[in-house]
Amino acid sequence: MIDADKYPLLSRIDSPADLRRLDVESLPTLCAEIRRYLITELSSNPGHFASSMGSVEITVALHYVLDTPEDRIVWDVGHQAYAHKLLTGRRDAFHGNRKMGGISGFPTPEESPYDTFTAGHASNSISAALGMSVAARLKDNDKVRHTVAVIGDASISGGLAFEGLNNAANTPNNLMIVLNDNDMSIDKNVGSLHSYLAHINTSKHYNSLRYNVYRFFRRIHLIGDNGKGFVLRFNNAMKSLIGGQQNIFEGLNIRYFGPFDGHDVRKLVKVFNEIKDMDGPKILHLRTVKGKGYAPAEADPANWHAPGKFDPETGVRQTGNSTVPKYQDVFGQALTALAAENPRIVAITAAMPTGTSISVMQEAFPDRVFDVGISEGHAVTFAGGLAKEGLLPVVGIYSSFLQRAYDSIIHDVAIQHLPVVFAIDRAGLVGEDGVTHHGAFDLAYLDVIPGMTISAPSDAESLRNLLYTAIQREDGPFAIRYPRGSADRDASAIPFTELPVGKGRKLSDGTDAVVLTLGPIKDEAAKAIATLAEKGISAAHYDMLFLKPIDTDILKEAVAMNVPIITVEDGSITGGLGATVAAWMKQNGINVPLRTLGIPDKFVHHGTIAQLRDLCGLDAKAIAETIAEATA
Amino acid sequence: MIDADKYPLLSRIDSPADLRRLDVESLPTLCAEIRRYLITELSSNPGHFASSMGSVEITVALHYVLDTPEDRIVWDVGHQAYAHKLLTGRRDAFHGNRKMGGISGFPTPEESPYDTFTAGHASNSISAALGMSVAARLKDNDKVRHTVAVIGDASISGGLAFEGLNNAANTPNNLMIVLNDNDMSIDKNVGSLHSYLAHINTSKHYNSLRYNVYRFFRRIHLIGDNGKGFVLRFNNAMKSLIGGQQNIFEGLNIRYFGPFDGHDVRKLVKVFNEIKDMDGPKILHLRTVKGKGYAPAEADPANWHAPGKFDPETGVRQTGNSTVPKYQDVFGQALTALAAENPRIVAITAAMPTGTSISVMQEAFPDRVFDVGISEGHAVTFAGGLAKEGLLPVVGIYSSFLQRAYDSIIHDVAIQHLPVVFAIDRAGLVGEDGVTHHGAFDLAYLDVIPGMTISAPSDAESLRNLLYTAIQREDGPFAIRYPRGSADRDASAIPFTELPVGKGRKLSDGTDAVVLTLGPIKDEAAKAIATLAEKGISAAHYDMLFLKPIDTDILKEAVAMNVPIITVEDGSITGGLGATVAAWMKQNGINVPLRTLGIPDKFVHHGTIAQLRDLCGLDAKAIAETIAEATA
Repeated sequence: MIDADKYPLLSRIDSPADLRRLDVESLPTLCAEIRRYLITELSSNPGHFASSMGSVEITVALHYVLDTPEDRIVWDVGHQAYAHKLLTGRRDAFHGNRKMGGISGFPTPEESPYDTFTAGHASNSISAALGMSVAARLKDNDKVRHTVAVIGDASISGGLAFEGLNNAANTPNNLMIVLNDNDMSIDKNVGSLHSYLAHINTSKHYNSLRYNVYRFFRRIHLIGDNGKGFVLRFNNAMKSLIGGQQNIFEGLNIRYFGPFDGHDVRKLVKVFNEIKDMDGPKILHLRTVKGKGYAPAEADPANWHAPGKFDPETGVRQTGNSTVPKYQDVFGQALTALAAENPRIVAITAAMPTGTSISVMQEAFPDRVFDVGISEGHAVTFAGGLAKEGLLPVVGIYSSFLQRAYDSIIHDVAIQHLPVVFAIDRAGLVGEDGVTHHGAFDLAYLDVIPGMTISAPSDAESLRNLLYTAIQREDGPFAIRYPRGSADRDASAIPFTELPVGKGRKLSDGTDAVVLTLGPIKDEAAKAIATLAEKGISAAHYDMLFLKPIDTDILKEAVAMNVPIITVEDGSITGGLGATVAAWMKQNGINVPLRTLGIPDKFVHHGTIAQLRDLCGLDAKAIAETIAEATA
Repeated sequence: MIDADKYPLLSRIDSPADLRRLDVESLPTLCAEIRRYLITELSSNPGHFASSMGSVEITVALHYVLDTPEDRIVWDVGHQAYAHKLLTGRRDAFHGNRKMGGISGFPTPEESPYDTFTAGHASNSISAALGMSVAARLKDNDKVRHTVAVIGDASISGGLAFEGLNNAANTPNNLMIVLNDNDMSIDKNVGSLHSYLAHINTSKHYNSLRYNVYRFFRRIHLIGDNGKGFVLRFNNAMKSLIGGQQNIFEGLNIRYFGPFDGHDVRKLVKVFNEIKDMDGPKILHLRTVKGKGYAPAEADPANWHAPGKFDPETGVRQTGNSTVPKYQDVFGQALTALAAENPRIVAITAAMPTGTSISVMQEAFPDRVFDVGISEGHAVTFAGGLAKEGLLPVVGIYSSFLQRAYDSIIHDVAIQHLPVVFAIDRAGLVGEDGVTHHGAFDLAYLDVIPGMTISAPSDAESLRNLLYTAIQREDGPFAIRYPRGSADRDASAIPFTELPVGKGRKLSDGTDAVVLTLGPIKDEAAKAIATLAEKGISAAHYDMLFLKPIDTDILKEAVAMNVPIITVEDGSITGGLGATVAAWMKQNGINVPLRTLGIPDKFVHHGTIAQLRDLCGLDAKAIAETIAEATA
């Protein structure tokens, strides 16, 4: 339970209705309490810190002014939404944030009526909120329901957000877009829209004059809430009158207001109140500071995006004392070493230089690394263009985000057999980020693409060698998928070796069963096999390394033993290794028993990786049970 | 061979080098010859007519000014590129346009060095050309290679194009974007950017003044080709000076020139020459007329997008005298009938109201149909927002274009179990449009999504009933995939019947084999079975109707017969019906022989559907052979 002495205001807010009973003058105090609460909670139970710190006032002002949940707030990426969770009945549940059975780290409709839409991938809020706003009007023309999309300046650069903007004025609606502009994505922001937003102050006088005149007219009732035509004529007249520059958003028929200080909560309440009933789409540009209110985070927002545990007093972050690198580091280091030897290697990331460790190459070869911002489709098509001219592009991207570039992979790379390397990070179960972030589908959605090579290293050394192999090959697209988290060891001193494409390797002999694994999940399988050996069950173990082409020599060797075969993969059981082996066996009329283990055909929520493996039957214990059953 | 008397100029052009030998004054005559040639050829060998007619001058001027193929032209969607094909060595081969073994209807790098990038799906040209331009500079800093993206005003509204625009100024490059603005996509254009482009004339004086001053400075050598800094300062100074409105493209740091008349070929040559060496990204806005130079097409450009055969003299289009509706018509009519009964049904199309026949509902219920333009991701996420508020959205989209909305399907619909109906047209082999347009992958990429219902009607009646079933169900996403072309009959008078989800039906009994089919390919299988019956081989035939959930009762019934099972589907053999049956059999330890027929794991090019079915082993003959082999 929250300490009412420490949090006299926050402790009384069990829903936004309680918030709306507060005097507007007390809101700054509430914001300070929320910040303290977030710092305390997140220092011991890690989560997304800096974005949520930056959106406290926006959250308080929106729930204060709007009649949520009847009015709808659509958050773009849940990073910003912790204050929203605290104010909407989940203050005490916040102890369980991102824990299995606890609340999700992102807005989740299944969890609360205040969470109106899934918000794990960037840039979807405008399209979703537009749909909700249009629906409200279609269902009941007289209903005045407010719909608000809150989107960051990084997310708005995604193609989906632009498509939403381009369609916002097409259909009658009252959508309000709140642009939470902190000049940062997870890493430093890029792209021209970003520079544009930074310099929009040049027209500040025009914008503030326009806002003030609008307010004045509204007060004297010259502008009713439905006076859209008049407002548009008025805007145009003002433009002619004072020669203001045309704004990108106004070019798209969305009225623009701002920029305003996104940390002045009283001002925000005033502005939201004055603009919310204006008919038609409008955008409110708010300037915020990522990590606001906590000096260490303000000074280094990229590293405080998701800082892990930290000392709230000193701001010292708890760093693991592990010397074992993460898979992303193995990749980043190997990429940089290879790039030093081959000037044709270039790298592309979509707003994730740090998360993919492409930052390592960026430091060494800044001119050969392209951070294209949140625009996964562009990242892949741009890589296609680079490859078409003879370069060797490596696209570093998370598995679940690569879903956004699916057509670019097929149409702009695979059809042309272009040698683009896909370094697919966060493949398989990712743990606490949950349902929107698991890399469960990549094996299936890539496997159907003709000419795509699909590999999965099972340790640091094979990740290095697969990257080296992909670079040597230059024969169509080559995917390398590996998980979040620590690798087995630092393999950076081991010389690169080219691996035969489509060939796996035997890890251990056995006579009672054959275990085929893909990726580092081999370690769970090896543990299972070791346990069974103690019970007198002996299983051979092969590390497949490639899904496509599949190693049919291993498959032939395996079926020749005429014992049960068990496949294990950290990916959907539909369309991956198990499915490929099943199809191959049926094609060849082979009747050896087969069991396939992987992520089941349902959406998996959040928890630790160990908990989720247990849930999916993918840990050593479950694998051992399956092998034992199969051989019984 | 081309008639040199009828085409005195065109007949002498075997490559752009020949074109560049012509006097600029003769270019209008050449353009007229190209138009005549296109009209004559396309009247008897159908193709994409109106777009290519509208871009004749742009094409001639670009090849005249640029040093192709050393300079690169990237066409956005190949519809515009027929004149390009004629000028680049494929004038005589144009007889075989879109025919099997003949040239492709779209730019295809495998076909010609002048075709620099795959161009079947809209909006990829800016990203691809940017990659090519950046690569040229990275590989050799001194090389002046021109890279041009030619994009239509409909394509530029796609999110991928915006991502490209937003990144164009990020990296040193000399990209030139030619905006071919004919105010049309295949259907009428939509979206705010479109209105914006239409009204950009308001700043025409400013734009033309700026262009003229730039020319003047360039002539007196005040602006060198690398004087980028100066040019930018000069632009900004001019803006302050004459108070011109800021342009959306200039807001993104791309210099804008235009609008110019895209049919004045001499003027285009002049403008291209003057702008091509300007450093940094720039956009040239050209106004064109879709169908230009052929009155019937200018008057009705949507229907002349791909008009089929026509009489070149009269403009009378050859319409089939078939009374059997296409699948798209069956869908459009059923949708409209259901929408009349249920006000919660709404429909969304991404620039394809005519191609999907959503136009039928649009006419009847214009307020409940949303054409969002070329923005497939937005179409699906917007549908998610509509569904979240209790409406029943039906998204009509082509199978290969739906690839662009893959993450929206997963993240914005499936995770939330929202009742969005996907009416997936052009599923399976599509024929002449070829490799970029076959709907080969949808079964695989949808099957891995948890909670997705996937159905495939096998005739007009089942398409109607599946749509009715999907609407009744309201339980998560429901996909209905059906092919291009004619259905079996007009079933519009048959009352709707709700079908049990996940249940197929037996079509015929048999004892020697079991054939399981998905979709209208059942007709080829039925022919095969009939042929075999004459030879004394008797095969049972089941129409599965659903891929997911699969009908395990049918599977049990089938394997209980203990005869070979043959699956047949008009989709990739990876990850579809055959794969599902194989996995199910292995899971259940069933050793009945299985053969799986479908589109093989390679990219299939263009030809008639009959030719391509033959190629893929999917026609009655090949199916019969497979059954005979399996039962031998």
